[in-house]
Amino acid sequence: MRTSPIISHKSMTAEEAASLIRNGETVGTSGFTPAGYPKAIPIALAARAREIHAAGEEFRIQLWTGASAGDELDGELVRAHALSKRIPYQSNKDLRNAINSGEVEFVDLHLSHVAQFIRYGFIDQCTTAIVEAIDVTTDGKIYLSMAGGMSATYIKQADRVLIELNEHFLEEMKGLHDVYLPAPPPHRAAIPIYHPSDRIGVPYVQVDPKKIVGIVKTNLPDSNAEFRAPDAESDAIAGHIIDFLKHEERMGRLPKNLPFQSGVGNVANAVLCRLASTPGIDPIMMYTEVVQDSIFQLIDADRLDCASTCALTLSPKAQERFQREINLHKDRFVLRQQEMSNHPEVIRRVGIISMNTAVEIDLFGNVNSTHVLGSKMLNGIGGSGDFCRNAYISIFMTPSTAKNGNISAVVPMVTHVDQNEHSVQVVVTEQGLADLRGLSPVKKARLIIEKCAHPDYRGLLREYLDYGLENAPSKHTPHVLERAFEFHNRLAKNGSMRA
Amino acid sequence: MRTSPIISHKSMTAEEAASLIRNGETVGTSGFTPAGYPKAIPIALAARAREIHAAGEEFRIQLWTGASAGDELDGELVRAHALSKRIPYQSNKDLRNAINSGEVEFVDLHLSHVAQFIRYGFIDQCTTAIVEAIDVTTDGKIYLSMAGGMSATYIKQADRVLIELNEHFLEEMKGLHDVYLPAPPPHRAAIPIYHPSDRIGVPYVQVDPKKIVGIVKTNLPDSNAEFRAPDAESDAIAGHIIDFLKHEERMGRLPKNLPFQSGVGNVANAVLCRLASTPGIDPIMMYTEVVQDSIFQLIDADRLDCASTCALTLSPKAQERFQREINLHKDRFVLRQQEMSNHPEVIRRVGIISMNTAVEIDLFGNVNSTHVLGSKMLNGIGGSGDFCRNAYISIFMTPSTAKNGNISAVVPMVTHVDQNEHSVQVVVTEQGLADLRGLSPVKKARLIIEKCAHPDYRGLLREYLDYGLENAPSKHTPHVLERAFEFHNRLAKNGSMRA
Repeated sequence: MRTSPIISHKSMTAEEAASLIRNGETVGTSGFTPAGYPKAIPIALAARAREIHAAGEEFRIQLWTGASAGDELDGELVRAHALSKRIPYQSNKDLRNAINSGEVEFVDLHLSHVAQFIRYGFIDQCTTAIVEAIDVTTDGKIYLSMAGGMSATYIKQADRVLIELNEHFLEEMKGLHDVYLPAPPPHRAAIPIYHPSDRIGVPYVQVDPKKIVGIVKTNLPDSNAEFRAPDAESDAIAGHIIDFLKHEERMGRLPKNLPFQSGVGNVANAVLCRLASTPGIDPIMMYTEVVQDSIFQLIDADRLDCASTCALTLSPKAQERFQREINLHKDRFVLRQQEMSNHPEVIRRVGIISMNTAVEIDLFGNVNSTHVLGSKMLNGIGGSGDFCRNAYISIFMTPSTAKNGNISAVVPMVTHVDQNEHSVQVVVTEQGLADLRGLSPVKKARLIIEKCAHPDYRGLLREYLDYGLENAPSKHTPHVLERAFEFHNRLAKNGSMRA
Repeated sequence: MRTSPIISHKSMTAEEAASLIRNGETVGTSGFTPAGYPKAIPIALAARAREIHAAGEEFRIQLWTGASAGDELDGELVRAHALSKRIPYQSNKDLRNAINSGEVEFVDLHLSHVAQFIRYGFIDQCTTAIVEAIDVTTDGKIYLSMAGGMSATYIKQADRVLIELNEHFLEEMKGLHDVYLPAPPPHRAAIPIYHPSDRIGVPYVQVDPKKIVGIVKTNLPDSNAEFRAPDAESDAIAGHIIDFLKHEERMGRLPKNLPFQSGVGNVANAVLCRLASTPGIDPIMMYTEVVQDSIFQLIDADRLDCASTCALTLSPKAQERFQREINLHKDRFVLRQQEMSNHPEVIRRVGIISMNTAVEIDLFGNVNSTHVLGSKMLNGIGGSGDFCRNAYISIFMTPSTAKNGNISAVVPMVTHVDQNEHSVQVVVTEQGLADLRGLSPVKKARLIIEKCAHPDYRGLLREYLDYGLENAPSKHTPHVLERAFEFHNRLAKNGSMRA
């Protein structure tokens, strides 16, 4: 039982809290890559928006979060047509459709940039912050739940703060967070994180309690899918990566104890599973933005040294286990605000091994992580750019084909560039691994074709490259613009990139 | 007179030094964006290569530098067909042609990445280092000349070191450099630069004197063009930038004392001239990679507080003045190795205003800095990516047209992405300034068209955008791939991007 006097004093229903939010407002919420987001107030707000719309009036808000949020937030509000603009990342099907139909404006941002852009006044300030918490004290200490996200900055900037006090989470979960806000340039100190487990701030967000205008009690887990065992393709990719890392270590090119960063999804999970199961691997450290259920594979194999993350994105079952074993985990997990979990300074300093997923990769090592056919937004760039640009070594991975082989992940030219050639050092598909370090563009292309492309597409890719070497304006990067998107144009026309 | 015993002891001619370099070797040299590069040994090496070729034998080296080098190095060697591969940046006409013809392999790199990629073993180690110095001591202290560049790393990695002792530079120039090499991850400390003028290392490169195999005396200035007064277009761009910065300051969005970074070329010079001549501007700090003749405009206006740079890229006349006044300049200039002048950690910490030049910019804020028609290499990405990604605010500038108006700098889609939408906050042409912060892609596009595109191209750009909003797969980034390069295809076909 959370018992601070402020809780009963400011207690209200989700409906009462939702009624405080005005049309046109900018609302900043907790939550990062669905974990730790508010649930009850958004559902009530969506209901209220529907009522207001039914009465023929306008109601839309600008929604700023940490990263993606659960359906209770993004899905409910977008289906109620209550969103006008959204930053900085999302992964909800209905929201994605509304972005692509033009109903909702979306600004895709590097996750490490969001806090500073808000503080510097480059993006609209939020007037109301809604944050999920495990506890709050009468003097204004807010203990966040499963994600650091943007909460400290939104709470600081907002005029008023609404809290969802989620009693689903044990009070013993308090203490996982490390909250630190850097001073503004030009008078900023070093970010004093030198080891993934370093704590540099306090385990709560401090706010003037007068800004807390309402506290809504809830008891709801984050709604994340359960861990599934890796499929054959993901497992093959993971195998190539483990072989590569072992080879690099033998060659003296990989120091001991570099922390890992791993994106979300099946392939990332498969790599962690392999790190847990492959003989002869020492316990690892993670300096990452999201930890998923697969973390338990490492814990069970006694191979997790420590993990710095922005969010614990766990299925309800894994949330239960994590809480049950909280005393085992408290020392080795630290939850940071996304400005710190993704900070270029720390990432370059500690020297991470970054592993992120590509939608498509081109012959010259550029990666598209976000846009289908250069146009349709999937989720957003997320933290991949923060990590890969400053990594010790940056790995991008994807199955070589999608949609029953009709889409090749290796294309002549990507239709949108999220990470360019300079941020991509190693490319891996289930076919194999291409180590692009130190290679000129044409050598990169040959290697990507032979090691990573699906055999069905190798001939077409070789033909494009050879045609370019004869006909392009330069043999350095031998693109022929008239043909650069021919794979994509075939896909749009015939439903397949095949010739 | 430089008088250390080592100088006479290891003295040799440029020809003798050149004879020590073997076919197929990797040679690392001093020099950064033509300043401080070796001159006599490369000329002798080119002559030797011609002789060897005349005798029917192979002779090519891999050449690693800091950034671009003078014609005495890049030009001489490439005309002698003595280069097989080159990193990480160049700006020599003959070398550019050889790269684009496929004779020389070129690997374009972020300048902050080069030292770590070399040290980590990701790129071939150089076996011989050739560095220009002002002095060398018998115990192996090498005092560099006009650039920090990669010298400390190449000297450390190489088996043997050749020195060009350039007596053109006064001994009083010693002390400008600050040489610091970071420890490898994961045990790295913070880079302790908190103010552009902070010195964190020593003013020389220390080497085991046994590695110094030859010292060649020279007396040659760096060959850089003289400063020309800004043309009308550059001056208009500069004017828009000054107006914008003043506006930002009034709005409380620009703290006092943010250091400036400024790329090379006419437009960058024009901005510094305006900073020197506009009433009511306080002295500025620079945290940049290159200082050109235009720095004297600031000095003469008493508006240069301090400058951290990697190179003093001055014309012979300005080199003379700088040396004559060295006692006035020593306290406010610090020359760093490029790993430090361009380090993301320091750049994000001190919060720079970055100003870089684009070749072309697309409707959605992506910048091409390097490739003509997606294929032909100009110079390379240089330091622009290091600075803009981590800047407090990132400005890209270009005249709105080139080649008598036949090329529009604003295009539907850039043909190569060096800086993507996330690293580009403000776009400026002589037409005007577009502040893209916090805007969704379509709003960015409207603003870039109306503020920055040349009036001759606005109609065509609007038509592309409107066509996309009707026909693209998504209204989020409404690209239509079949038409995305229509400006470039018209240029290739008709010599003009006009319809």
